[in-house]
Amino acid sequence: MEKRKKFILPENEIPYQWYNVAAEMKNKPQPYINPGTKEPIGAEDFYPLFSEELSRQEVNQSDVWIDIPEAVREEYKIYRPTPLVRAYGLEKALDTPAHIYFKNESVSPVGSHKLNTALPQAYFNKIEGITNLTTETGAGQWGAALAYATKVFDLELAVYMVKISYEQKPYRRSMMQTWGAQVIASPSMSTKSGRKIITENPKYQGSLGTAISEAIELAQQTPNCKYALGSVLNHVSLHQTVIGLEAEKQMEMAEAYPDIVIGCFGGGSNFAGITFPFLRHNMNGDKKTRFIAAEPSSCPKLTRGKFRYDFGDQAGYTPLIPMYTLGSQFTPSNIHAGGLRYHGAGSIVSQLLNDGFIEAMDINQIESFEAGVLFAQTEGIIPAPESNHAIAATIREALKAKEEGVTKTILFNLSGHGLVDMASYDKFFSGDLVNYTLTEESIAKSRDIE
Amino acid sequence: MEKRKKFILPENEIPYQWYNVAAEMKNKPQPYINPGTKEPIGAEDFYPLFSEELSRQEVNQSDVWIDIPEAVREEYKIYRPTPLVRAYGLEKALDTPAHIYFKNESVSPVGSHKLNTALPQAYFNKIEGITNLTTETGAGQWGAALAYATKVFDLELAVYMVKISYEQKPYRRSMMQTWGAQVIASPSMSTKSGRKIITENPKYQGSLGTAISEAIELAQQTPNCKYALGSVLNHVSLHQTVIGLEAEKQMEMAEAYPDIVIGCFGGGSNFAGITFPFLRHNMNGDKKTRFIAAEPSSCPKLTRGKFRYDFGDQAGYTPLIPMYTLGSQFTPSNIHAGGLRYHGAGSIVSQLLNDGFIEAMDINQIESFEAGVLFAQTEGIIPAPESNHAIAATIREALKAKEEGVTKTILFNLSGHGLVDMASYDKFFSGDLVNYTLTEESIAKSRDIE
Repeated sequence: MEKRKKFILPENEIPYQWYNVAAEMKNKPQPYINPGTKEPIGAEDFYPLFSEELSRQEVNQSDVWIDIPEAVREEYKIYRPTPLVRAYGLEKALDTPAHIYFKNESVSPVGSHKLNTALPQAYFNKIEGITNLTTETGAGQWGAALAYATKVFDLELAVYMVKISYEQKPYRRSMMQTWGAQVIASPSMSTKSGRKIITENPKYQGSLGTAISEAIELAQQTPNCKYALGSVLNHVSLHQTVIGLEAEKQMEMAEAYPDIVIGCFGGGSNFAGITFPFLRHNMNGDKKTRFIAAEPSSCPKLTRGKFRYDFGDQAGYTPLIPMYTLGSQFTPSNIHAGGLRYHGAGSIVSQLLNDGFIEAMDINQIESFEAGVLFAQTEGIIPAPESNHAIAATIREALKAKEEGVTKTILFNLSGHGLVDMASYDKFFSGDLVNYTLTEESIAKSRDIE
Repeated sequence: MEKRKKFILPENEIPYQWYNVAAEMKNKPQPYINPGTKEPIGAEDFYPLFSEELSRQEVNQSDVWIDIPEAVREEYKIYRPTPLVRAYGLEKALDTPAHIYFKNESVSPVGSHKLNTALPQAYFNKIEGITNLTTETGAGQWGAALAYATKVFDLELAVYMVKISYEQKPYRRSMMQTWGAQVIASPSMSTKSGRKIITENPKYQGSLGTAISEAIELAQQTPNCKYALGSVLNHVSLHQTVIGLEAEKQMEMAEAYPDIVIGCFGGGSNFAGITFPFLRHNMNGDKKTRFIAAEPSSCPKLTRGKFRYDFGDQAGYTPLIPMYTLGSQFTPSNIHAGGLRYHGAGSIVSQLLNDGFIEAMDINQIESFEAGVLFAQTEGIIPAPESNHAIAATIREALKAKEEGVTKTILFNLSGHGLVDMASYDKFFSGDLVNYTLTEESIAKSRDIE
């Protein structure tokens, strides 16, 4: 009989430092640009938007390791270290020679990896005297995480939730409210950018880009208030490296090292979290691991986007970011993986893709759910629709290994569970889910307009 | 700063045996009775309903330890051992000298402790050549667990889900379907007992008692099919002792021993699971721990029921069981803790209550949700409405300790999370939840009719 196996680290193995890949990249990511002055942006330029410490982390390209504050590490103990699991059930179902491992970030009380950055973001704001935060959320995973983190560190929170998700995922809205946050469907009438888009397009279902604009606007108009973002930015990816740092130790326990590491891809933070600590060993020539970002075919910034400067939000409130982008005016289809409906990729991941350190793969919606159901039936955990993309990519690679008759070690990040996304599984079973195909023309319309 | 702390056991500390408290009780529980012949029932009388091994476990009053099959222990590894957590956040919020610990059964992929018995039940049926199972479910926690377990051991499953829960908790229905089970709202037209009750009362919202009748009827009419029950019975409580056996070792790691152990109470299995291994030390005189069963005020079988022989189901298909009961015709109010809406208590727990080894406490619905929200905001995990009763009882005892200025060690079982029950939290926040009070007269109507 094959043996199920979890690799569990003790609490004292929760990392004491985050890993800052930017400090070790030969080709550094290009700087953010002030759209008005066209000048590169330094840490202090972010102070109006983010806490000072987070702003410094955002532009830090020199310190390889950054200390995790004791109070944050203390709160990580609620769910960390998370298990690394050998997915024997899935291997058996695929009849593959590949060895599949997954890092199970779904055990966090909010159901995903997002708490890894929500806790430090809330903490750094708190110790600098901030009282209020605003943010946006797609599927609600990030909003739920920040709601809990702001409760822990005693801050007020307003969340702009993408309208389509607000309607599709009412339970995640309830979760945020249980932890004390205020939740507003976006676009809303509470901001100038929201009112503008509602006026122009009353049926607009929202996007992360629009919700970000609204959250930034509210933060700028509220005293003692900063804004928080759940992905894309460098400091967010930095915090997520606890995933890969733990996984590295756990792979040692398993006496294995990954040939392939896979994460789903929205703005890039869970992908960064699982891959960067392993990527380090590629950059210094010790290893030749492949890193695969699995993105939805309907929002293919990495596989079909353009590497250029673009805004991080729809209204143009952010600095210009060097990113693979479909254009800040791109409106993604209403796929259920709400957390992947974002037009661009973070600057570090974009540079790494450009330089050939990582690869991207696009997965359509139905294939992603087929993968998720197989995983649920073989490993017990019903995955988040976002995570289904990583599973689908893993299955592709495991079947390729079978075809080629080679043993590969594949590691993927299970970024979250899907218990609050069951309505999307219902649609899958009833045959109501569709694949969205994008013509070059439709993509070019927003992608190529600078 | 107070320190959050989890106590984690390695996988090799998953128990190898279940603990059978009946073998150590001086006053054994009275036997089940055949309602036709009035004769006591032996293992073989259960064979038409249950697998032979489960039937033997049901009446076993001699073996203190019963081996866990290796294949079951293997599947336990998907989520076991579960963490024991020191609830510092809750202690701090209550400003209590009490030390509060909870066993976190919510980490199971189905979200509750129910998998502890679903896996062995599916396994024993499978190895005896059974191909189909039927069962009932209230809130859906049990149905979800058995759906996954039957998928693991390759059996077909039909689940009768109490109608009110089928409507209130659609996500749990989806979970069962994801794992391949067929789900039917009960009462249904698919059985004689269902048709009868629908005809008499077309608006009947269902109860566990009715759903059990339907599931038994279908099992009896289906070739190679057995029935499975998620609580009440002795073999179910037996399987749940993995909870307390692990907790015992973990309390040792914490260098503490509980003065009070608390579990919420539906049919008694999670309560049995957390308490029996500790109760052992009371029975042999080593310890004087208090054991508190927390039941809903609207379904108060332990605090206001009668200890007598009664049927386990509404239609009278089961043997007569010696139980604290509100009468098998009792229809509980539509509280959100669907898993606690059952008229009776298992025979072992009933005997223990009668003999003064355990206590019971009733909690009304609003107090239970207040407790759950405080727990969510201090410990991160949003609890199942059922588990909220255990938390409310814990808070009562912790505040009593504060009032009395004494340090008590309290352990409770967090039987499940509430992520699929967010609609009930919504109702709580909107002020739409009510407390149901029962007059003596209304209870007597079903309780006293033998």
